[in-house]
Parts: sequence; C-alpha cells; structure tokens
Amino acid sequence: MEYPSQLVKRAVEEIAKLPGIGKKTALRLVLHLLKQPKEFTSGISDSIRELREQIKYCSTCHIIADTEECTCQTAYRDTSIVCVVEDTPDVLAIRNTGQYNGLFHVLGGRISPMDGIGPENVNIDSLVQRIKIDDKVKEVILALSATMEGDTTSFYITKLLKDYEVKVTTIARGIPVGSELEFADEITLGRSIATRTLFNQKH
Amino acid sequence: MEYPSQLVKRAVEEIAKLPGIGKKTALRLVLHLLKQPKEFTSGISDSIRELREQIKYCSTCHIIADTEECTCQTAYRDTSIVCVVEDTPDVLAIRNTGQYNGLFHVLGGRISPMDGIGPENVNIDSLVQRIKIDDKVKEVILALSATMEGDTTSFYITKLLKDYEVKVTTIARGIPVGSELEFADEITLGRSIATRTLFNQKH
Repeated sequence: MEYPSQLVKRAVEEIAKLPGIGKKTALRLVLHLLKQPKEFTSGISDSIRELREQIKYCSTCHIIADTEECTCQTAYRDTSIVCVVEDTPDVLAIRNTGQYNGLFHVLGGRISPMDGIGPENVNIDSLVQRIKIDDKVKEVILALSATMEGDTTSFYITKLLKDYEVKVTTIARGIPVGSELEFADEITLGRSIATRTLFNQKH
Repeated sequence: MEYPSQLVKRAVEEIAKLPGIGKKTALRLVLHLLKQPKEFTSGISDSIRELREQIKYCSTCHIIADTEECTCQTAYRDTSIVCVVEDTPDVLAIRNTGQYNGLFHVLGGRISPMDGIGPENVNIDSLVQRIKIDDKVKEVILALSATMEGDTTSFYITKLLKDYEVKVTTIARGIPVGSELEFADEITLGRSIATRTLFNQKH
C-alpha cells in the first residue's frame, strides 16, 4: 500500500498489529483521527499508555485491578466458593449472569503443551497455596473452556486439590439454552445425557 | 458494562469512540494490549500522538504529507492536469490505478448545505488561485462522489473556472467493470448511454 506520509504509514502499521484490524481498517481509523480535535487523539493515546503502565493485578485472585488488593475479599461476597477461570473477560461474563456471588481465581491462560504453556506458566501454584491457607473455601468451581486444553487444566487442578478438604466441581456442559436438539453435536448431547439433572432442580 | 478497573474503563471508552469499534471490541483490544510487552503499547500510543501533532498538509495540493511541500510538484509528474478529489484516500485510490500521472487537489470535503458545509469550508478558493497563477495547467478533472453533494460541488467549481483557459472534465459515470447490465440502476444505465464512447477508444 502507498501512504501519503511516513507518520501515517507508522500509525497504520502500529494499529494494524491489533487483532481483527487490517491495514485498510487501520488507514480508515488514521484518516478519521486526523480529522478530530487534538484532545480526541491525545485521549486515546494517553489512555492506552497509562493502561499498560499503571495496571495492577490483584495479588490474591489475579484479576485486573487498579490496586494490588481488589474487591475480591469484601464482605458482601460468599468467601466459601472460588471460581477458577482462564481470563478476566470470563470473570465479567460470570458476574453478568447474576448467578454467582463468590470469589474468583484467574489462571491467566490454560495448560497447552502444543503452545509451550505448562502448569508453571499459569497461576495454578497460587491457587493451591490459596486453598491451603484459606480454610473458609469449601468449593472450587472450574469454569474453563470446553476444549482439550481446558479439560487438561481441569484434570491437573483436580489432581493437585484432592489432598485438601475442598469440593471440586465444573460448570455443566450441555445444550445451550434456546437451541434445538437436532443441531447439537454428538459429544455435547452425550454429555448432557450423562450429566442430566432433576427437572425442577435449577429451574 | 462492568469493568474490572478504572484504567480499563477509560481505555475502552476512548477506543470505542473510533468509527466501527463498539465497547465489546474495545474491551477485547484492551485485554489484548494488557498481554503485550510495554514496547507494543507505547508504539501504538506514540504513533497516534505523533500522527496528530506532527502531520502537515501540502500548501499547494492539501494532501496529507510529512512536510508542507509534498512531492506533488516533482518533475516526473504531468503538471498540465489537476485532479480534484474530496479526500486523501481518493488520491491513493487514483494513484493505485496507474492510469493517472498528473497533479492533485484535495478539497477536504464537499459542499453540503444540509450539513452546514459551504464553499468556504472546502479548499475551492485555493484551487481557483492555483489555476489563476499556474498557466501550465490545461485541464481540471473533477473526480468527486456520484452523489447530490458531489455533483453540486462539481457544478460550483465548473462555474468558478469558466473564466480561465482550462478544460474542466469529470470522471465517467457508468456500469462498473465486471458487473451485469440487468443489475444496474436506471440513472447509471441512462447516463452510460448518454456518455457512450467509441469502442476502441480506451480499451
């Protein structure tokens, strides 16, 4: 692509590094930015820089936070359950359901030998330490992806936690609400039969 | 939407101001940025700030450039033709065709009374001055949008230039190459018949 200016070229190349944004979209964004007041572009530029420089992770649950002690330990939460998730968006998704009021533990990834990610690259050690120290925790819910890597991680955590007095559960795999049975794949359907629940239990 | 941190919230809100990017996409980008090395985010942040602060517009043709004198006046261009376009992307699009080697003049918009944009808000005055001073220019090609506003702008420029010894032309309106006749709208088809060309002329 030909660029009218080196500054435009550099900005396009930097923005196009973001996921889902190609060079054409980046050029469109750059030309849009050039038409905006200076405060608009400096707002974006500053917020991105400060985001990366000042962000903290909670030392207990590893959620993205403004301080190293997030609101995870406040009184209004049920401190007897810890929900283990892969990343911060999962925390937001689970909070938005309104069905869960317990604590969280963000792994920051999942075990994936193919990508060179072993148990030591995700926050599993700190989860075990947390269960060891905190005897208020009675249940650990594994809310990981329904993929090979997610299952591997779940198995590994279950194995490590079996020496502690804590119940390890996983979120249900089954037919999504609102979808037709005939379109479900065999494995999901099979699993939804194997882990069937009493009809009135959760409705 | 609930955010895990004020820094995340601010960055999401700033990024979501860009066209075509909603809050969900912005959040995904922010969480991606948090996983990248610091150089990655500072690269994006710096390039956006410098883009807006250091960009220049060529004082002759108003193209985005690194200096106030762009390459528009260099010897290898045909200085007898000026192509009038609405914005810089149009310049890039026309250059990419490889069919045009003349000069450009960027209006920076088009006359649109509905949006409060009059002739004084676009670079029409400087075009007339340019034609007045530069007697090398023999032809002005109007390459504006095939819309009401584009046509209004074309008429206005044609009227202003009629006192000067310069041929005013416009790019052809017609059936796009590769498209079927039956799908063309009546106005386009009618215009393509009215402005028909000899078959061998441009093939």
